[in-house]
Amino acid sequence: MSETSTGPGLRERKKLQAMRTIQVVALDLFDKHGYAKVTVEQVAAEAEVSPSSVYRYFGTKERLVLHDEYDPQLLTLLATDSTPIVTAGDLLSRIRTIVAGVLDHLDREELRKIERRMRYSVTEPDVRTRMARDAEGIAVQLRELIAQRSGASPESLEIRVVVAAALWGFLGAVDLWVESDFAESLVSLIDRTMDILSRGGDVVLAGPVS
Amino acid sequence: MSETSTGPGLRERKKLQAMRTIQVVALDLFDKHGYAKVTVEQVAAEAEVSPSSVYRYFGTKERLVLHDEYDPQLLTLLATDSTPIVTAGDLLSRIRTIVAGVLDHLDREELRKIERRMRYSVTEPDVRTRMARDAEGIAVQLRELIAQRSGASPESLEIRVVVAAALWGFLGAVDLWVESDFAESLVSLIDRTMDILSRGGDVVLAGPVS
Repeated sequence: MSETSTGPGLRERKKLQAMRTIQVVALDLFDKHGYAKVTVEQVAAEAEVSPSSVYRYFGTKERLVLHDEYDPQLLTLLATDSTPIVTAGDLLSRIRTIVAGVLDHLDREELRKIERRMRYSVTEPDVRTRMARDAEGIAVQLRELIAQRSGASPESLEIRVVVAAALWGFLGAVDLWVESDFAESLVSLIDRTMDILSRGGDVVLAGPVS
Repeated sequence: MSETSTGPGLRERKKLQAMRTIQVVALDLFDKHGYAKVTVEQVAAEAEVSPSSVYRYFGTKERLVLHDEYDPQLLTLLATDSTPIVTAGDLLSRIRTIVAGVLDHLDREELRKIERRMRYSVTEPDVRTRMARDAEGIAVQLRELIAQRSGASPESLEIRVVVAAALWGFLGAVDLWVESDFAESLVSLIDRTMDILSRGGDVVLAGPVS
């Protein structure tokens, strides 16, 4: 990773561009023929790269769907901003602000790509399974990051539980986003999710759906 | 499932007993030879049943580890008790009481079996993956159950997020239980987990580990 203060280097930019192209080609093929029927080899041929390049960039077929160039960005923003994280509320509020900041900068085409990708995370069992495994890896990273910033142990029950709740609450919001056909914006859903988690035991479950 | 008011019928009791025997035989073989090296056929031979019986009872090799006869009991207790569930706090408090009630009735041998099983959920990737998938199925059941009891929609964001937080918080507590070599009792860890989720944003992450 050759990064300079002016942004990623040429090699890194080329890789990013290649991955974007391959992912869009893959989504087009999946949408056209169905996820199960398309092979990595077909994606490579259509994107005019070698299958080994696809595997090197993405690792598995499921990650052609799941790979999100904004995930590391969210973790980096959380790692580097200077707001103190002392309570769970501080963390949930930071997640809310960072997600809103990143999503607000995406154009319509980028958001549409996220919609197409996330639909497969709900409909394709293999993609779902891989997403759950990746989520556990992200949970470990998040725990270490929050432990560093707060001075606590990443193994503490508080950090484990709060990170698990934030991460799986987040994924629950994404599920609802997909299942409701993107009726409410993702920013608004994430916002409400972090609010629900902040309110803890006081959240009202009964009564009309808010 | 032939159940009467005096408990499960003869057929159901025989099945339960057979499953207990097979699971203990499997755990003994896994502990002795390593999980990966033992086949379902070896478990069947050692338990003196046919491999097809093992598959019929458990479905997959991973479920020889994961199958928990208390899981449905917890869901049934949650479905049938008469305490109103209006807020997330009501739900978290019910989970705490029900888990404590069930775990308190287990003898040392039963608890030891849970310890042995849960260790594989941390160390064996295949078991872990299956557990995550099963957790999603339990989440759907929990959402429907709470929706019924509270009069809300199982699809509401509140129920999705609170159920995801409770379930994955619970599993986080089990992970810590295993990783800390069962230093703290599972009842106490689940108790603290439900308390952390109830306190929501107020939970302190920084400072010395509590």
